Amino acid sequence: MAVGQCDFPQMPEIAGIELGSTCAGIKQNVRDDLLVIQMAEQATCAAVFTQNAFCAAPVHVAKANLAHAPRWLLINSGNANAGTGEQGMQDALATCANLAKVAGGSANQVLPFSTGVIGQPLPVAKIQAGLPAAVKNLSTANWAKAGLAIMTTDTFPKGASQVISIGGQTITINGISKGAGMIQPNMATMLGFIATDAKISQPLLQACLSKAAEQSFNRITVDGDTSTNDACVLMASGCSLVPELIAGSDSYALFANAIMSVCKQLAELIIRDGEGATKLMRIVVEQALTDEEAVRVGKTIAHSPLVKTAFFASDPNWGRILAAVGRAGVENMDLDKVQIYLDEVCIVKNGGRASTYTEEAGQQVMNNEEIIVTVKLGRGEAVQQILTCDFSYDYVRINAEYRT
Amino acid sequence: MAVGQCDFPQMPEIAGIELGSTCAGIKQNVRDDLLVIQMAEQATCAAVFTQNAFCAAPVHVAKANLAHAPRWLLINSGNANAGTGEQGMQDALATCANLAKVAGGSANQVLPFSTGVIGQPLPVAKIQAGLPAAVKNLSTANWAKAGLAIMTTDTFPKGASQVISIGGQTITINGISKGAGMIQPNMATMLGFIATDAKISQPLLQACLSKAAEQSFNRITVDGDTSTNDACVLMASGCSLVPELIAGSDSYALFANAIMSVCKQLAELIIRDGEGATKLMRIVVEQALTDEEAVRVGKTIAHSPLVKTAFFASDPNWGRILAAVGRAGVENMDLDKVQIYLDEVCIVKNGGRASTYTEEAGQQVMNNEEIIVTVKLGRGEAVQQILTCDFSYDYVRINAEYRT
Repeated sequence: MAVGQCDFPQMPEIAGIELGSTCAGIKQNVRDDLLVIQMAEQATCAAVFTQNAFCAAPVHVAKANLAHAPRWLLINSGNANAGTGEQGMQDALATCANLAKVAGGSANQVLPFSTGVIGQPLPVAKIQAGLPAAVKNLSTANWAKAGLAIMTTDTFPKGASQVISIGGQTITINGISKGAGMIQPNMATMLGFIATDAKISQPLLQACLSKAAEQSFNRITVDGDTSTNDACVLMASGCSLVPELIAGSDSYALFANAIMSVCKQLAELIIRDGEGATKLMRIVVEQALTDEEAVRVGKTIAHSPLVKTAFFASDPNWGRILAAVGRAGVENMDLDKVQIYLDEVCIVKNGGRASTYTEEAGQQVMNNEEIIVTVKLGRGEAVQQILTCDFSYDYVRINAEYRT
Repeated sequence: MAVGQCDFPQMPEIAGIELGSTCAGIKQNVRDDLLVIQMAEQATCAAVFTQNAFCAAPVHVAKANLAHAPRWLLINSGNANAGTGEQGMQDALATCANLAKVAGGSANQVLPFSTGVIGQPLPVAKIQAGLPAAVKNLSTANWAKAGLAIMTTDTFPKGASQVISIGGQTITINGISKGAGMIQPNMATMLGFIATDAKISQPLLQACLSKAAEQSFNRITVDGDTSTNDACVLMASGCSLVPELIAGSDSYALFANAIMSVCKQLAELIIRDGEGATKLMRIVVEQALTDEEAVRVGKTIAHSPLVKTAFFASDPNWGRILAAVGRAGVENMDLDKVQIYLDEVCIVKNGGRASTYTEEAGQQVMNNEEIIVTVKLGRGEAVQQILTCDFSYDYVRINAEYRT
């Protein structure tokens, strides 16, 4: 059940980036659940990972191997290999060694990613058995298949693509993601894999990804439960004819904007597929003292079960939004300066209900499938946006029934 | 729907504390919704209030009047008088003046409390019309009626009582509370009113209440939504024959323990009546570096929608608890030292699933209506306990349908 139109886009091929998937039967036998991505030899690769202290074994390995000019990503869906202790580390390393053997490289050139149930031993033998087929299937044309192979409880595959022109040559960017949050939907996780043919140094690529992830994936929430396995990777094959992108150049700015745009599209698709979601809310916090303050207020609203159930019911129960702003921990807030809007309808002004507000006007906005909540704090210039979804019976059903 | 037995206890009368209620038709006409509590002239009174920046008009007035040796509490259920701006302040002050006139005192000796929907104008005329009947009904025998009069969406009235003996004389403590959380159930709120006949100075009474509230009401959560109207009051009529309680004395220690016990009982009753609750979870965090760290870890678990839905489903999906601990923001946590238990069953040890754990043992605990989750962080000596309930279809139903 998706909020809005979420068709997988046409994705151009990217020279130097090949994808191959297969069904290894990790959790079920109905669709591909093992994906290998191979990068050209000269490619650079950047990544960001979950901040969860209990981060999964493959996250530890991928973090370490990022320093060894990685050539392959090894992704399985169905098993998170998290909460698996020392055995989990051995298993993650074993699958990397397996892929290196099949593909002809060294184990530390492989970045492993896992998503699925926490606490189950990784089925290493099944992955080993599936790897030759996945490697055999490697092709630059497999983006749609890859989008499907990384899904767990997602209801649709998620992709975004952008082509930019620089000096008569092009740079292409493709990205796929999975998950119903950066959060912990079903103990599955958010994963994002973005590739481009740009030539760009690893440090600059990392800076570009870190900034983009902060403003996209780190600004969405379904239920506030940060996963143990979240990861987002940006690969640059260097095959484009555009000269190397240099920090501070106009070309780099254009590229960074495009990466930001692709990340935001992928992040929004995750919210549109949020567990049980029927509505998409954009929570825009303006006039905050700092970005951190704006994010805090936005997330307090986005995490409030009372706000989320009111949106599910299309109930303009604006007092719940006001109360969430009030408990967000903003020091010395001047309530008389706070304004809150549902789309264009002002609901709160001068510390209470706006004199112009009518229940009918609020109801009209709440009936929409996509709603913008704007909070103006009257304290400063910072603006941040948080994307979230509502909280429905289906959220409870999906998560109460997950393991049955 | 309550978790466990929650019968209203037999409550002895407390000399110097009279209660009178009536039906003022504030939201509906089916039961009492207006309560007046009158204290003896020499009584002392302490209170704690919500930290929500958008705190309600009556909270502002009660905070200010606490300094004027209050004689009366004026409590209405059905309307929160929050998010009502300047008019809300005028309305709260007007009802205090009305009561003062009827009861024969001054307006600033009245502490007002409101609970119900946010953002609706307080029906001052209805309250004014109801006050003579409420005052006429004042009696020391009305504790059970008072427990009913302050309810909003509560499914049962909540009371706790304790009698202590000191030097052959007794001190009695009665308390009533309402709400499904210190949080924001239905924009209704948690309120607690505790009375005793002890002789005790106001500053010592305030210290006693502040400490007790911190370890009781401030350690429960249904949905994390701190209310705009939360308040807890401790009244001491001074009518007991026990000599005045002095800080540092054994008598005071005995009294403070009893107050703590009554507060904990009242807090637990709120969780047992948590919206949609089918289970009660005691989350005990041990071996933390600081109390603050222990509370943070406990609340992260208690607020996780994934943990709460797993408990609702009686699913021993312990990975969700582990993941919540991991995202609680504990710096430099040594995962190998963390242990997690469901009742007596060890689920996590050495960074992963305990080798002794079986799904059957976990399932057996999860089938219980009351469950203790113990997290040992292996970092220090601090211990804190958080009480919470599960997250069910009914939570969504209750909050989606609240205003219809």
